[in-house]
Amino acid sequence: MPTIGVDAMGGDHAPGEVVKGVAQVSLSSDIDCLLVGEEARIQAVLETVSYNPEHIAILHCGDVIGMAEDPHEAVRSRRDASLLVGVRAVAEGRADAFVSGGNAGACVLACARHFTLLPGVRRAAVASVYPRRTQFPGQDPLALLLDVGATVHCAADELVQFALMGSAYARRVSKTKSPRVGLLNMGSEESKGGETLVEAHRRLRQLPGLNFVGNVEGHELVRGRADVIVCEGLLGNVALKLVEGVGEVLADLTTAAADRRLSWRMGLRLLAPAIERLRALADYTQYGGSPILGFAHLFIKCHGRSDAQAFANAVKVAAKAVRDHVPAEIAEAVRGLR
Amino acid sequence: MPTIGVDAMGGDHAPGEVVKGVAQVSLSSDIDCLLVGEEARIQAVLETVSYNPEHIAILHCGDVIGMAEDPHEAVRSRRDASLLVGVRAVAEGRADAFVSGGNAGACVLACARHFTLLPGVRRAAVASVYPRRTQFPGQDPLALLLDVGATVHCAADELVQFALMGSAYARRVSKTKSPRVGLLNMGSEESKGGETLVEAHRRLRQLPGLNFVGNVEGHELVRGRADVIVCEGLLGNVALKLVEGVGEVLADLTTAAADRRLSWRMGLRLLAPAIERLRALADYTQYGGSPILGFAHLFIKCHGRSDAQAFANAVKVAAKAVRDHVPAEIAEAVRGLR
Repeated sequence: MPTIGVDAMGGDHAPGEVVKGVAQVSLSSDIDCLLVGEEARIQAVLETVSYNPEHIAILHCGDVIGMAEDPHEAVRSRRDASLLVGVRAVAEGRADAFVSGGNAGACVLACARHFTLLPGVRRAAVASVYPRRTQFPGQDPLALLLDVGATVHCAADELVQFALMGSAYARRVSKTKSPRVGLLNMGSEESKGGETLVEAHRRLRQLPGLNFVGNVEGHELVRGRADVIVCEGLLGNVALKLVEGVGEVLADLTTAAADRRLSWRMGLRLLAPAIERLRALADYTQYGGSPILGFAHLFIKCHGRSDAQAFANAVKVAAKAVRDHVPAEIAEAVRGLR
Repeated sequence: MPTIGVDAMGGDHAPGEVVKGVAQVSLSSDIDCLLVGEEARIQAVLETVSYNPEHIAILHCGDVIGMAEDPHEAVRSRRDASLLVGVRAVAEGRADAFVSGGNAGACVLACARHFTLLPGVRRAAVASVYPRRTQFPGQDPLALLLDVGATVHCAADELVQFALMGSAYARRVSKTKSPRVGLLNMGSEESKGGETLVEAHRRLRQLPGLNFVGNVEGHELVRGRADVIVCEGLLGNVALKLVEGVGEVLADLTTAAADRRLSWRMGLRLLAPAIERLRALADYTQYGGSPILGFAHLFIKCHGRSDAQAFANAVKVAAKAVRDHVPAEIAEAVRGLR
């Protein structure tokens, strides 16, 4: 059984929600978890819930990296922080993968510092799982966008590697046998987007093992055109935050409408099941977090606002990826490139 | 009084809606319009509406560029197309600005071919006007995003020029005295986004005449943080299409919900005024189109789906920009850079 390292101190509701999530997993599966953080605080939470002690171990450390701290500075100076202690524990073989809801920049830097890039992989990528409208029968309602922030700009061969990494992950985690892979671009024609994207398009089209569907435009991100969408970090980061931002603005506007008139409030009440369905689709707690791909060990970054359910899902996704040898599959796919 | 050249043949509903829009303007203002296109078809539409013949002239030409044609090929070979004849007429001084709802790529290329870049301006930019939630009292509900597709990648000094061009346009057209200008980036810190964006940030911060508010992240595009948001074309194009795409998906989901249950249908009916208000905010017919900035003459690109109202608004915006000497203001702002 895989052992998943979990940053007990990472996230807005840590350690409470993290520990509760791990406790849930210990009762419903045979996944072993290594909770990394302040032992006394972890124990205090465990005392309030049911859990299976056979599946939970604690690795004590006294420090934690704050959500708003400068990542570079924090990773350099806080060697005893839960994130760094945990990532080192995984690198040393004490766990198989790591889950954290902590400072996003620090998570990426911690991986870069202590994990090894897979043979042949030039750069790691943060992949974000997000909900979109499906277009084909049996399609997963969640798509994978990468990179969303480990890089700024990328060369063509790096984008090609992202496509292979994302495709391997989606194949295993979303049960899509042959994920549709698209290249995020400013037009559908292969001549669009400048030299790097034209070159990436040309190379992706020639890869035999990849289901490349061509360029994907901004509006197609929220449709089912592709299951894995590849881009440089600057573009992916802006696109991801924009989708989140539109969702928040809509929630605001709906609330404002509900405040205003009785008839609108009643309308909202009648629409509640439909709105609930939309919310469920957009609920990040269901995704199991964003994998950081390209290293020998998997890292799942959870949203800072994650609750126990979200952490439990992330641990399960990490365990599934370990069992399915996702890093080895990525290495295999990248090896085929040479 | 300014004369505005109008591509009578450009857009999904041309020439009907274009000519009707111009007819409206002729009755309600003293703007002169030069309708460029097939004279017989233009006359046929004019016969069905009221208009003031003193304000409308026709420049006949026999060809038109289709919405789906390859822009490079079309601009090279169809010298008698309404778009090219019209742009040449403006370049020759027969009109002061041009409005078209035609093939977007061809519009940009036609400007590049026949208009002159303003002194010191390195590259032109397509600016897109879009609605967002406001954040400050008296703020315009519409923001300006540029570039959204004339460029792919940009150097720092080009982004700085876009900021000056967009600010000058917003100052005149949206009546915001000192538009808040932001740089689209993957983080709020000035160190984010790679060399080009760091350098652009540094230079923008030092410009005395510009109200630079710093980096703007994806989610802030739909909030009031900035009135003018600057980025390279690849990023702007993806962001703009993504906003449009999310809107379309939401409309789909609302319709799907309404089909499903009587209670949801009733809910939607009660919410109708709120939804209508949202739709009005997102209604491109109100914006007056996307200006192409950086040339000695202004070009307003209308959405392909534009109706008479949208064309009428675009003509009024173009006339206002001409009266307010927007190109001269842009030249003045860019001159200050040296």
